[in-house]
Amino acid sequence: MVEHDGADIRGQKDIGRLLLRCADRPGLVAAVSRFLAETGANIISLDQHSTEPIGGMFMQRTIFHLPGLPAARDELERDFAVQVADPFGMDFRLTEAAKPKRVAVMASTEDHCLLDLLWRNRRGELDMSVVMVIANHPDLADAVRPFGVPFIHVPARREIRDEAEQRQLDLLRGNVDLVVLARYMQILTPSFIEQVGCPLINIHHSFLPAFVGASPYRRAKERGVKLVGATAHYVTDDLDEGPIIEQDVVRVDHRHSIDDLVRLGADVERAVLSRAVLWHCEDRVIRYGNQTICL
Amino acid sequence: MVEHDGADIRGQKDIGRLLLRCADRPGLVAAVSRFLAETGANIISLDQHSTEPIGGMFMQRTIFHLPGLPAARDELERDFAVQVADPFGMDFRLTEAAKPKRVAVMASTEDHCLLDLLWRNRRGELDMSVVMVIANHPDLADAVRPFGVPFIHVPARREIRDEAEQRQLDLLRGNVDLVVLARYMQILTPSFIEQVGCPLINIHHSFLPAFVGASPYRRAKERGVKLVGATAHYVTDDLDEGPIIEQDVVRVDHRHSIDDLVRLGADVERAVLSRAVLWHCEDRVIRYGNQTICL
Amino acid sequence: MVEHDGADIRGQKDIGRLLLRCADRPGLVAAVSRFLAETGANIISLDQHSTEPIGGMFMQRTIFHLPGLPAARDELERDFAVQVADPFGMDFRLTEAAKPKRVAVMASTEDHCLLDLLWRNRRGELDMSVVMVIANHPDLADAVRPFGVPFIHVPARREIRDEAEQRQLDLLRGNVDLVVLARYMQILTPSFIEQVGCPLINIHHSFLPAFVGASPYRRAKERGVKLVGATAHYVTDDLDEGPIIEQDVVRVDHRHSIDDLVRLGADVERAVLSRAVLWHCEDRVIRYGNQTICL
Amino acid sequence: MVEHDGADIRGQKDIGRLLLRCADRPGLVAAVSRFLAETGANIISLDQHSTEPIGGMFMQRTIFHLPGLPAARDELERDFAVQVADPFGMDFRLTEAAKPKRVAVMASTEDHCLLDLLWRNRRGELDMSVVMVIANHPDLADAVRPFGVPFIHVPARREIRDEAEQRQLDLLRGNVDLVVLARYMQILTPSFIEQVGCPLINIHHSFLPAFVGASPYRRAKERGVKLVGATAHYVTDDLDEGPIIEQDVVRVDHRHSIDDLVRLGADVERAVLSRAVLWHCEDRVIRYGNQTICL
Repeated sequence: MVEHDGADIRGQKDIGRLLLRCADRPGLVAAVSRFLAETGANIISLDQHSTEPIGGMFMQRTIFHLPGLPAARDELERDFAVQVADPFGMDFRLTEAAKPKRVAVMASTEDHCLLDLLWRNRRGELDMSVVMVIANHPDLADAVRPFGVPFIHVPARREIRDEAEQRQLDLLRGNVDLVVLARYMQILTPSFIEQVGCPLINIHHSFLPAFVGASPYRRAKERGVKLVGATAHYVTDDLDEGPIIEQDVVRVDHRHSIDDLVRLGADVERAVLSRAVLWHCEDRVIRYGNQTICL
Repeated sequence: MVEHDGADIRGQKDIGRLLLRCADRPGLVAAVSRFLAETGANIISLDQHSTEPIGGMFMQRTIFHLPGLPAARDELERDFAVQVADPFGMDFRLTEAAKPKRVAVMASTEDHCLLDLLWRNRRGELDMSVVMVIANHPDLADAVRPFGVPFIHVPARREIRDEAEQRQLDLLRGNVDLVVLARYMQILTPSFIEQVGCPLINIHHSFLPAFVGASPYRRAKERGVKLVGATAHYVTDDLDEGPIIEQDVVRVDHRHSIDDLVRLGADVERAVLSRAVLWHCEDRVIRYGNQTICL
Repeated sequence: MVEHDGADIRGQKDIGRLLLRCADRPGLVAAVSRFLAETGANIISLDQHSTEPIGGMFMQRTIFHLPGLPAARDELERDFAVQVADPFGMDFRLTEAAKPKRVAVMASTEDHCLLDLLWRNRRGELDMSVVMVIANHPDLADAVRPFGVPFIHVPARREIRDEAEQRQLDLLRGNVDLVVLARYMQILTPSFIEQVGCPLINIHHSFLPAFVGASPYRRAKERGVKLVGATAHYVTDDLDEGPIIEQDVVRVDHRHSIDDLVRLGADVERAVLSRAVLWHCEDRVIRYGNQTICL
Repeated sequence: MVEHDGADIRGQKDIGRLLLRCADRPGLVAAVSRFLAETGANIISLDQHSTEPIGGMFMQRTIFHLPGLPAARDELERDFAVQVADPFGMDFRLTEAAKPKRVAVMASTEDHCLLDLLWRNRRGELDMSVVMVIANHPDLADAVRPFGVPFIHVPARREIRDEAEQRQLDLLRGNVDLVVLARYMQILTPSFIEQVGCPLINIHHSFLPAFVGASPYRRAKERGVKLVGATAHYVTDDLDEGPIIEQDVVRVDHRHSIDDLVRLGADVERAVLSRAVLWHCEDRVIRYGNQTICL
């Protein structure tokens, strides 16, 4: 199971996260850790993965403590680029644990995923700042109100998709680092996905790639499966085909009606989506082709 | 989770199992239990299921204790047919717990499912008599020998399918109540399935309906799923489409190679197949369309 | 896994539940089902259990459909007593699915179990009517308000236990069928448990019997266990020793601090408590000595 | 879930494992990785853990590839001691992946843990060489024979404990790197544990610390728990109190007799013990007080 950063780390102002990716070669770990040591940073944790024993893609996530990080951040980034990233041909990203990601949640009428995200975040379990909830139905406004998060009703259905997406883009663009589709039941166009300018995470109510598309619980019942599941994945232009971040299942049997599958599946959906959002917000998820590496 | 009959029941000579199926209507449970009570039988357990609250298909499995069952069996069957089954339009089956099913296991070169079945059966965990192992490769002969079960090598590959199936049918027909395909890697023809004259259970190395067909672990790796699974199902003419008896999954992540998935999946395969075989041998599995009811 | 009654059953006015318990003997199932058939009732489901193959305690839960049940209920109860229960020496209870149990939830400052019960009930997943929340701290008043359930603050701590319990008894006695302790952190006296006049269900934050008593997560960390769990049980005079209704666990490892165990355990606590409350409200849980039978 | 080294690593002659432990301080990862880089070694994977964010105990496991390792090993060890370990006050251990640990398995009459270890090892799933099986009963000799491992019958019971332990020590001392107690039902004396000169891993048939001591399944049934489990731990002088390496559980209910718990628990025991042995053999398990860190 993927880890999470503890309370000691989350929100601390001198804690940084360094993510990087490059072709694997000897000396990578040494180069990065030497750079950090010489800067005065102490490595708190370091996770790496190579897609192949030799000649694969190398990825590393490093959490470090550096007194004065907020002031030193920009210089650190420049120095790392010159001294390490450029010589090794690395992509990298440097983030501060004290700056949680700004997240918008999009929902329709189902409350379980939305409320679980809001509630966990209020408890401090997730590492994000929910800046708005956008819903294409007004039903969940009352349930969201106690959490103090703006609830914005943007009617959306197939016939008015263009206007709806334009209004959503006006709200989102530049304002959020992540969009979470918490059982948002409208299809988003490739144009929207391109323009929104940040990743989107969706929860699909089946164990993908089984039951791609509509009505997965009904089809699960018809096929007579003994487990139903849920899948959190990044949204791409191909419906239900994006990189999978997390999945889980629950046992069912012949006594369960389709309604029962919906109810039991809801528990799995909210758990899976919450884990995927947490890992994303903690900079743990690296996309690699159509797969994810969760460090 | 489906139950199993305890050691108190398995193999006891006065214990009977009554399975029945008919259109649901009031008075079914009463009619059956009154019949048994008047016969002097004591109901040890009774499980029933109706596919709909009203107007569905009714299924019931009853375990009862009747002193002198072996001698009384035939008369009991006739009386039940006349007094209960015919009036209610029931299909039914009456079996004796003391007569375990005769089972043939078909295997190729992978030992994990085959050996787990043989081990569990030697320990008394399964309720069957393994009368032969048929393999299309000789590799597993040594591993089977200590169990005292005949190992029969019947070479089989696409080019000689007809001769192979004929030899297999000669061995199986009339001699077994169940054929278990324990990672038997050859496709069996509809003609074979029809002629063999008993049910076949197969283990497929994926969580069906995901990854139907060949190389499921490789395709699971390519899709980046976070769980891999296995499915035990009855064999029908449509490959991997038969009624599912049991499924399970195990968690995997980016660090696992395809070989790792094969290794981790093997544990799930053997557990799932063993449960499916046990439930079948205890007359718990009722086929209903392309689904199973496991009572 | 224990089942639940589907949406077809819950709240329907002509659906009854019959629970009974007596020394096992032949003819019990027949007598009960004949009685119901002759009354015009159709058995929807029937689950029974005997603690021993012969000579044990027999328990049965029967769901039936009887047109006109609300009007016929009292007479049905009398007739069953005379015709079946008395001759067989049965304890029994007849309830109507249309009359959900009246439940009080007692809480302190932790919101996860309380909110999950209220959420699930609002979604129609549980089969109860929450008539009040009693808390010994005012903290959760705002979180409860949107659910439209009375929130009553009754300060309680060791020094004022007698007055607090008296106030609680004044609120509860005669008004509720079940009290749920949703991480209510005060010990209740045997006198309270006796006087409250209905069962109490508690959630303990460990996998009992491991870590009975205070600070189970801290002690779990110190012992280095690899799983932490939660246990829902009926409250008896012996702390953490009452009959267990449901338990579950979650995997942890060396990277988890005590705070992490608290966070991960909270998910298990709320899931386990919700299942136990549902099963109790559906009349599925039969106490037998210090164990429970969940039919 | 703890990882395992892939087939790419296991048994490769140029792959080394470096385990180390010291008080945490800045620059540790850098110092070790620089040393390896300068030696010409390529880091394949690196896992570390610190028991506290600041001021804790630091542990690291590094897998590296160094051409010519077998010849260079001794010099590498000396250099690392002088250049890194001594300055930082480290304990460390350097092992070669090509040299599997020599393991003795001790058993009594239960075959499930023993056979699962032997079978997995034959498949190449474990990273060990089983050099002998010592049993205090002759029952399992036939089952062990096909695996080609010496089976040595050393009668042992309370009355002849001293002689038995002396014979066992004569067999084990100097010949094995690990002793696995695979449901070996005799208590070993502190003197034996001290003299045997290598770690011992035991499988206890309960979810410790629940049901320490004898007859855990019977006591689990009596307490009415809803899950039963198994625990693999290092053996210390305190029975069932040693550092836990791995645990798992399986769901049970009121229908299961004690015999059923034994049967279902056996599956958990063999899985848990196999994982613990694998992790130990791959140098993943670091003892820290009475806990284990599994990297």
